[in-house]
Amino acid sequence: MILLHHFALSPFCRKVRLVLAEKKLEVELVDEPYWERDPEFLRRNAAGKVPVLRTDGLTLSDSTAICEYLEETVPDPALLPKEPAERAEVRRLVGWFDDKFHHEVTSKLVYERVNKKLTRAGYPDGAAVKAGVKAIKFHLDYMGWLLDQRRWLAGDALTLADFAAAAHLSCLDYSGDVDWARSETVRDWYAKIKSRPAFRGILADQVPGFRPKPHYADLDF
Amino acid sequence: MILLHHFALSPFCRKVRLVLAEKKLEVELVDEPYWERDPEFLRRNAAGKVPVLRTDGLTLSDSTAICEYLEETVPDPALLPKEPAERAEVRRLVGWFDDKFHHEVTSKLVYERVNKKLTRAGYPDGAAVKAGVKAIKFHLDYMGWLLDQRRWLAGDALTLADFAAAAHLSCLDYSGDVDWARSETVRDWYAKIKSRPAFRGILADQVPGFRPKPHYADLDF
Repeated sequence: MILLHHFALSPFCRKVRLVLAEKKLEVELVDEPYWERDPEFLRRNAAGKVPVLRTDGLTLSDSTAICEYLEETVPDPALLPKEPAERAEVRRLVGWFDDKFHHEVTSKLVYERVNKKLTRAGYPDGAAVKAGVKAIKFHLDYMGWLLDQRRWLAGDALTLADFAAAAHLSCLDYSGDVDWARSETVRDWYAKIKSRPAFRGILADQVPGFRPKPHYADLDF
Repeated sequence: MILLHHFALSPFCRKVRLVLAEKKLEVELVDEPYWERDPEFLRRNAAGKVPVLRTDGLTLSDSTAICEYLEETVPDPALLPKEPAERAEVRRLVGWFDDKFHHEVTSKLVYERVNKKLTRAGYPDGAAVKAGVKAIKFHLDYMGWLLDQRRWLAGDALTLADFAAAAHLSCLDYSGDVDWARSETVRDWYAKIKSRPAFRGILADQVPGFRPKPHYADLDF
């Protein structure tokens, strides 16, 4: 049995869950309040972060390392193309969302509003929230620009880049922070990925004390 | 000809330079004052960050994507092991340094003291510097703990994980922020990696207005 130590609104955990589901790997989810720094959890991952995946007798951490491991050990269906240049484009975009988008948007909106309350780390920083609201517009426009030229974010095939992006956007959609009217192209892309069977678990998520927005699980939003 | 748009004290650029040199790929370095957001540079990388590598008619960005591309297209010498579990351990540690260590140490010391001055972004934040000085101790201890069990950081062979770590530590060593007396094991590891031919370019770096500490290029520090 595969075990995933996770937090429901972590985009990094959601990316791993989407990859597992797309590859039809059954997983048991273990809610991990990582901010409590439980010694048993820290023994599994000294970085003190989720996701942590336990599989094949191994304990793996770092969402990039986990996704590459899954791609190497369960290659079908492929979430990375075969050509090095195309793989680089997928990885560039995974980095774009997990680093830049996370820093400029997810951490400024979801973390300020939800994680801070859950972890009792204080009140949202108004300037950070404002910066996040502004930055997401640029990112939606950039996604729209990419999707005007490509069927999926990194090219003609669905890849890890789409799951990385959808993982972040789904967390923001949970709290109602995505203005889907901004780009029809991006909304169509999200509707397509949201209707995949792999997305079902994510749409069923409920974080105690934070109900999702009514349209969150609606496939026709 | 391979071109690398870089900034001398960027640990991400240094990691790519080390990988290029280890694989004996000649590269022409282009100094890129990325903070000036030159439109020509932004056209190459919308993220506005270095490194950007131009090779094989491609323009690649994101240091992880670049290093994986180089590993796939120039597999010899290998900087990733063959086994998926061992590859996951290398990638976990690359993530450790490029994400956690960068956030807790490099950005708090090098960026506060050097980049802020260069980019005219204000004065160093004393609380950040203090946090960085404290955090590097934990990281040196963690590296020492790993190196007590392994020849190199991720196992018995030199990998991308060692270059990621050395890239960050070399930036901090430039500004004199590494207490090498803290761990003999870590110092021995750094002496070993520092004496590799691949490291020569990095030891010759000079950032205008910021001279390196006298021991910086000394192989017997």
